Amino acid sequence: MGLTLVIGTKRFSSWSLRPWLALKATGARFEEVEIALRQPETKAEIRKWSPAGKVPVLIEGGLTVWDSIAICEYLAERFPQAGLWPDAAAARAVARAVSAEMHAGFPVLRQRCPMDLLLDAPLTEFPDDLAAEIRRLDALWVECRTRFGGDGPFLFGRFTIADAMYAPVVTRCATYHLPLSPEAAAYRDAVLAWPALQAWRAASR
Amino acid sequence: MGLTLVIGTKRFSSWSLRPWLALKATGARFEEVEIALRQPETKAEIRKWSPAGKVPVLIEGGLTVWDSIAICEYLAERFPQAGLWPDAAAARAVARAVSAEMHAGFPVLRQRCPMDLLLDAPLTEFPDDLAAEIRRLDALWVECRTRFGGDGPFLFGRFTIADAMYAPVVTRCATYHLPLSPEAAAYRDAVLAWPALQAWRAASR
Repeated sequence: MGLTLVIGTKRFSSWSLRPWLALKATGARFEEVEIALRQPETKAEIRKWSPAGKVPVLIEGGLTVWDSIAICEYLAERFPQAGLWPDAAAARAVARAVSAEMHAGFPVLRQRCPMDLLLDAPLTEFPDDLAAEIRRLDALWVECRTRFGGDGPFLFGRFTIADAMYAPVVTRCATYHLPLSPEAAAYRDAVLAWPALQAWRAASR
Repeated sequence: MGLTLVIGTKRFSSWSLRPWLALKATGARFEEVEIALRQPETKAEIRKWSPAGKVPVLIEGGLTVWDSIAICEYLAERFPQAGLWPDAAAARAVARAVSAEMHAGFPVLRQRCPMDLLLDAPLTEFPDDLAAEIRRLDALWVECRTRFGGDGPFLFGRFTIADAMYAPVVTRCATYHLPLSPEAAAYRDAVLAWPALQAWRAASR
């Protein structure tokens, strides 16, 4: 009765990457079920696992947990020693706020710059709404790093769920060559160099 | 150094209603700052309080927490005796999943049926995408009630953050006379009868 994470195609499924990274960070063993997205049978395949008809889904025994952030919260409780949220209450509150902002926000960036790990397509036009979202992203990363980053490379020092939530955006910054401040670019590079992300990327090829 | 919750116009601000209900359920004293939405000065007023430029925002001492679900998580940790999440781990995981599904989902319902507590406008047409979201909402409510509702009137028995997350949708069900199964309608009526929701509604007039 182990853990099973049902995910979508690694190349495209930004929502799947998030809890996968969090689960990897726990060090727990888990089964992985990858469902090919954008196929005629995709919907039916996902419905076998997911009440909301969406991936990712985490299954443990009789329990099914869906939605990326809810899976991450479950993992944070299930594996407290992994420290998936910052230890200090104030840092944890901000980590949840930035994670939630990603969860329901950045609609233009999502739509114009979909995650595609095999693509390299420098963006040449930055309409105002997209530019505003990139500025917000940059400011948010720099603020977290400045206030909470300490000696670690990630938003709150060591890896937390906040980094998992922004990892697909980091890959978009690389794929589409989005303009970032030096501080934000350093964070992008730290995430890109992270072994778990590299493993996911290698598997997407 | 108390708690301050910055919210938008009570009549319209569905995102503000959620953490306000959770905060009410803690019984804690708090200051409320209501910012008039849809005014020329709205954006500037919100920026005074909120890094993401959005309401709601919770402030406690030097800490600013934004985004409805992150504020609710903060309150759940800050006031453990309030039991804002279900006690059992499995129920808590599902409560977070349905809360997250609301946080980032139901786009058609949100767009076609905006919260307006002073409106009574029966909907007469139900395009497929809207009908599908209403069916999902209904199924989700009935499943939570059946599996976790026990003797209480709410999704997980007593009031939890999941009810706060769906409360604005409950008001939309009433405003637009959305078709629901008898079980889902009973849940809708339980939320509508809840004193905290009635207090918010009365203040919106």
